[in-house]
Amino acid sequence: MADLDLTELHGALTDRALNSMNFLNEVAQHYPNAISLAAGRPAEQFYAVEDLHSYLDTFCDYLRDELGYDEAAVRRTIFQYGRTKGIVHQLVARNLLADEDITVDPEALVVTVGCQEAMVLALRALRATPADVLLAVSPAYVGITGAARLLDLAVLPVAGGNGGVDFDDLVAVIKTARADGLRPRACYVMPDFANPSGLSLDLDTRQRLLDVAAEQDLLLLEDNPYGLFPAEGIERLPTLKALDTERRVIYLGSFAKTALPGARVGYVVADQVVAHPDGTTSLLADELSKIKSMLTVNTSAIGQAMIGGKLLQHDCSLVAANERERATYAENLRALTEGLAARFPGGEVSWNVPSGGFFLVVTVPFVVDDALLAKSAQEYGVLWTPMSHFYDGDTPIHALRLSCSSVTPAEIEPALDRLAALIRDQL
Amino acid sequence: MADLDLTELHGALTDRALNSMNFLNEVAQHYPNAISLAAGRPAEQFYAVEDLHSYLDTFCDYLRDELGYDEAAVRRTIFQYGRTKGIVHQLVARNLLADEDITVDPEALVVTVGCQEAMVLALRALRATPADVLLAVSPAYVGITGAARLLDLAVLPVAGGNGGVDFDDLVAVIKTARADGLRPRACYVMPDFANPSGLSLDLDTRQRLLDVAAEQDLLLLEDNPYGLFPAEGIERLPTLKALDTERRVIYLGSFAKTALPGARVGYVVADQVVAHPDGTTSLLADELSKIKSMLTVNTSAIGQAMIGGKLLQHDCSLVAANERERATYAENLRALTEGLAARFPGGEVSWNVPSGGFFLVVTVPFVVDDALLAKSAQEYGVLWTPMSHFYDGDTPIHALRLSCSSVTPAEIEPALDRLAALIRDQL
Repeated sequence: MADLDLTELHGALTDRALNSMNFLNEVAQHYPNAISLAAGRPAEQFYAVEDLHSYLDTFCDYLRDELGYDEAAVRRTIFQYGRTKGIVHQLVARNLLADEDITVDPEALVVTVGCQEAMVLALRALRATPADVLLAVSPAYVGITGAARLLDLAVLPVAGGNGGVDFDDLVAVIKTARADGLRPRACYVMPDFANPSGLSLDLDTRQRLLDVAAEQDLLLLEDNPYGLFPAEGIERLPTLKALDTERRVIYLGSFAKTALPGARVGYVVADQVVAHPDGTTSLLADELSKIKSMLTVNTSAIGQAMIGGKLLQHDCSLVAANERERATYAENLRALTEGLAARFPGGEVSWNVPSGGFFLVVTVPFVVDDALLAKSAQEYGVLWTPMSHFYDGDTPIHALRLSCSSVTPAEIEPALDRLAALIRDQL
Repeated sequence: MADLDLTELHGALTDRALNSMNFLNEVAQHYPNAISLAAGRPAEQFYAVEDLHSYLDTFCDYLRDELGYDEAAVRRTIFQYGRTKGIVHQLVARNLLADEDITVDPEALVVTVGCQEAMVLALRALRATPADVLLAVSPAYVGITGAARLLDLAVLPVAGGNGGVDFDDLVAVIKTARADGLRPRACYVMPDFANPSGLSLDLDTRQRLLDVAAEQDLLLLEDNPYGLFPAEGIERLPTLKALDTERRVIYLGSFAKTALPGARVGYVVADQVVAHPDGTTSLLADELSKIKSMLTVNTSAIGQAMIGGKLLQHDCSLVAANERERATYAENLRALTEGLAARFPGGEVSWNVPSGGFFLVVTVPFVVDDALLAKSAQEYGVLWTPMSHFYDGDTPIHALRLSCSSVTPAEIEPALDRLAALIRDQL
């Protein structure tokens, strides 16, 4: 006998965004022998448990030697409830300066339970009434859509086009929304090696996006989990936040790919100034901190110590710390694109060649849905992600996402053979 | 120049619940030399950083020896993204059996980022429409009120009375709410050594609460952070969940006081069966897990390893593991109540004598507000918590909360002298 009825629980629970992750995980669990070109997790061959012991000790030494804490204060910092905005904020600020040329007041940072909580904090603050809407460059990371669903925040897709953002569509979406009485608060965008498209914005597009955001009085939510992983010979471009002179960008940071996912530590740079009715002001980070105090109280001090320790061991730069990982992803991405070229010389199957990151998109002349993924897993032994999971609505999508981050070069060849067999059988 | 206007951000940001924590923290920071009878943090004199290294190793050994993981799987479990519902679920289930006589399917558990996230998950699932309301036994922990505010979920207070729950008021609140077109979904209650009241429900009250919940078709949200800390000679009582034969209770668990706050690990037992429109069913835990995947993805594996290691080192029982802590709190609580009795023989100042936990309430013949706390901090050098922070609305409250958890016996005497001076000066 049932105790509750799903239709009487929050509507997000029946939404595609919240169920697609579950579906994709379940497929992977049901077919453990299938090679996965689906998982977006980082490479794990360089992890070592001893490093965690070392990170913890390094962070405790920092508390003692650099911050001057006595042993009681060290213990208190690691074991107790702590500062809502985090305890590695100074190190994160150094990291942003070293790796991204972003100068940020550590007080404008909130250290979060992964980047996902950073998204939730920003969206919760910005969604004041049902008229508030979020824009998201499409196809969009399912985590932003899911976070918005939890907060009953509508997401309006903006076409990505070939350059990563279709500015005509962006302005049209804003104008239509305003004409409908809606209030576009921000536009979510992943300018570097985006998940799922693999696309990056060139420098002109970045600058123009900032200009349009200023003209339209819109905030930008910049998500940058993959920026440190350019392909071979590719120069990294400045982030929107590095180019932002007007505090237009809320920057969502992740250490999952550049340090380790198991710490669950991310952050948000929220240096916007908030005017209060009494004439005082605060940083948006302090407002987000109030929300955080009621979501998770604070980010695990032990998780933060791991990230802090890793940062300290690499002079707060994760570029050099990820040289092996960067080379791994670049090699895998090349193997994927070259392998596709060798198998599909014809032209009816096409794909993009990203300049870095974890993902590329293969376009095929047939609809790619969950049923086809299940068939691929069961009959062909290869997993990938239907691009339909990254679009709202029911429009059939003729594309799939391949990930290069957690396979070995030796797995890529048979995986592509299996994918090619599936595609040929569908044609 | 301001970038954003507070009045255009989410309404919770101007709510008392979200600002009271900030206010109380700020007072503590401004007067670091004041003795704090305000902080509800656990005693920290027994923490040792070496223990964290040991917990991590113990948990890795468990993965190897008991779960049969190879080294790659151990590394993957600790470093990577992981199971949304957690990786210490089997150990938490053993702990619930050992310490609470609660038998739970580990699949009905969601390991969360502290108990606070557990509250948010439950409230998010239950708040489907603006008609949904939460009941909370008053005075209520500010964290439940704050979580409800974030989700635009109204909280209706239920009188606590002398027995911890006023059943006449409970039924009246439910009936009035239903007559107003509202849908009471659940009642939040802390049956053991409650924060802030210090009250516990006796066995009859527990049983009757379950009966009334069944009659009224209401869920109970049971929060139990302090249950392992009875005063000297006091028998622990069964939790509501241990008495629950109808899956009426969603149990909110915390390891902050029984292990360490810095891991940020809690959990929710959600064994309720959810009926789906297609005729299938799921556990409420699985629905909460979908919400969690969009809030924090999963709880830090490293934080979980710390809790898992501590559980393993104590045969999954935290009762014995907390013998020193329990004795410390019991001694401090006795020092507080005896110290109050020595200073206020008259009767115009009264207080309750809790049977355990961290808190007691002092009732005085004048209004206790934030201004008085600021005066107490500045002029008398003692901190405590105005009880008004635990009530909705602006009714003046003549009571203050004292905490015994993070002071030493040597601090309690001068703290009470200072408090007594303040109170005498007010009379």
